[in-house]
Amino acid sequence: MGKEFMQSEKLVTKENIMISQLIEKIKKTNAPICVGLDPMLSYVPEHVVKKSLDAYGETLEGAADAIWQFNKEIIDHTFDLIPAVKPQIAMYEQFGIEGLIVYKKTVDYCHEKGLIVIGDAKRGDIGSTSAAYAAGHLGKVQVGSNAFSGFDVDMLTVNPYLGPDGAKPFVDVCSSDDKGLFVLVKTSNPSSGEFQDRIIDGRPLYEWVGEQVAAWGEEHMGDDYSYVGAVVGATYPEMGKVLRKVMPKSYILVPGYGAQGGKGKDLVHFFNEDGLGAIVNSSRGIIAAYKQEKYAEFGTENFADASRAAVKDMVEHISGALAAAK
Amino acid sequence: MGKEFMQSEKLVTKENIMISQLIEKIKKTNAPICVGLDPMLSYVPEHVVKKSLDAYGETLEGAADAIWQFNKEIIDHTFDLIPAVKPQIAMYEQFGIEGLIVYKKTVDYCHEKGLIVIGDAKRGDIGSTSAAYAAGHLGKVQVGSNAFSGFDVDMLTVNPYLGPDGAKPFVDVCSSDDKGLFVLVKTSNPSSGEFQDRIIDGRPLYEWVGEQVAAWGEEHMGDDYSYVGAVVGATYPEMGKVLRKVMPKSYILVPGYGAQGGKGKDLVHFFNEDGLGAIVNSSRGIIAAYKQEKYAEFGTENFADASRAAVKDMVEHISGALAAAK
Repeated sequence: MGKEFMQSEKLVTKENIMISQLIEKIKKTNAPICVGLDPMLSYVPEHVVKKSLDAYGETLEGAADAIWQFNKEIIDHTFDLIPAVKPQIAMYEQFGIEGLIVYKKTVDYCHEKGLIVIGDAKRGDIGSTSAAYAAGHLGKVQVGSNAFSGFDVDMLTVNPYLGPDGAKPFVDVCSSDDKGLFVLVKTSNPSSGEFQDRIIDGRPLYEWVGEQVAAWGEEHMGDDYSYVGAVVGATYPEMGKVLRKVMPKSYILVPGYGAQGGKGKDLVHFFNEDGLGAIVNSSRGIIAAYKQEKYAEFGTENFADASRAAVKDMVEHISGALAAAK
Repeated sequence: MGKEFMQSEKLVTKENIMISQLIEKIKKTNAPICVGLDPMLSYVPEHVVKKSLDAYGETLEGAADAIWQFNKEIIDHTFDLIPAVKPQIAMYEQFGIEGLIVYKKTVDYCHEKGLIVIGDAKRGDIGSTSAAYAAGHLGKVQVGSNAFSGFDVDMLTVNPYLGPDGAKPFVDVCSSDDKGLFVLVKTSNPSSGEFQDRIIDGRPLYEWVGEQVAAWGEEHMGDDYSYVGAVVGATYPEMGKVLRKVMPKSYILVPGYGAQGGKGKDLVHFFNEDGLGAIVNSSRGIIAAYKQEKYAEFGTENFADASRAAVKDMVEHISGALAAAK
């Protein structure tokens, strides 16, 4: 469990800064997207579930295995088209330890396939506690003379409600371990406005949070973008437009595309004029594509081929929107 | 892994509502406190660490075992004095899967000892994702015809930044599974004011959040208190005073006592006139008591006796402050 690290001095260069790696991969694949590996058991085709439950019984092990088999197929059929994946840890945590073992297995497998892994964990706490989360998810923890990486994702989503001293340990680990963050600024859910949109001195809370994210990022730059990014939901394109300007050098992770209602033309606002600056996530729309009428021709057996087709369509959709906006 | 549940109809009575159980235990022990089981490896006495690392090597397993042995000793020496414990999951998560196995083991052991377990996880996400967290930590997840409880804590801390639809799945699970919540309102850390204190229509954000917590709680009542509680840091007693009135029926979980700076007389404001309404947490002050000069007489070998003495002192301290305020 966990990967051992050499205790040697590490040469930190602009090139191995995670945000620069992500941009490089986005350029190479020409796909500013990530696939949300958020496997609800109800998304997993019956034949996959049956096989796992036959092998492990109707247990947490069985459910976790079904999810693992499902993930693996989808990764195998999409990894060459995409720069990154975003596993939502809650979908694994719901199956307890067995689920988290599969979360880790998924992270490791994505790394083998050359993908950048954005752990969607939305952690955040007081300083010393955030430091523990940061060590476990992004960094390393020291045990005697060895250092271990508990989950070892490349980038992590972080909740800002506790303020700067709750976010700082995550930023620090990004500096020491070449990782990256996406801080929640404006979330994609229907009632995100309840607190995030409240007006403070004439401007909504999400703008104040966005400003902080930009400030934290200023000291933590890759080539053109900082490694302190932001989460802004595709479902709020007008706010995305404003936030794009508030945080010009922060990469924006955009959830809420497709199933949650975000459309292609709405996404244009999240990008900068360089065609960069945003990475759009789709979860259900890709991993459960086989359930859509549009991809029904693939059949349930070939669910991962449907996911591959859905990735291609999503990339085309976004590229088209970006081209049309030029 | 995980506990299987009978699929029978369950009789929900006022008595088995978790908040009523907590109050009952607080009355019985006369101790409105919980012990924060937040074991940094640096808190664990050297002889305990050495034994575990000798057995398992300088590995995550070794570190996790050290933490488990440490927790067990402290629980064994304090369980009869206290109503509840509050393990901070980050301290386990930092050791990856091995750490989380010990988190679960700690939860189960505390249940064996009759303690109420408040999982300090500060989870929160969009609705469907919060539902997965709620199932994993508080409720049950369905696998075929079986239902399993992943972590099975009694009460959970929740982050409100995503708004009502992010909190609702947690509230719903509390209704269906007799559990309880503490929603972050005003956190104990130094820079919690950065966003939480911002003035909206003449009142700080934390009051607006507190009002929502009170509203969610109104429909979810035990005998006198709702099972939607709040977190308000001991370090902000004046705000605690206001929030006590904003949320008269919400139990307040009060972190930040002792090590973070909260004093006994400051705590009075968090309680109602019935002497109830608040539960004060101490982590480092109890579990690492043996490191304080005050408890040095116990010696490192008897660190858990120092914890027991520190619990007694904390209870006396708070009772004294409450009595003096009458």
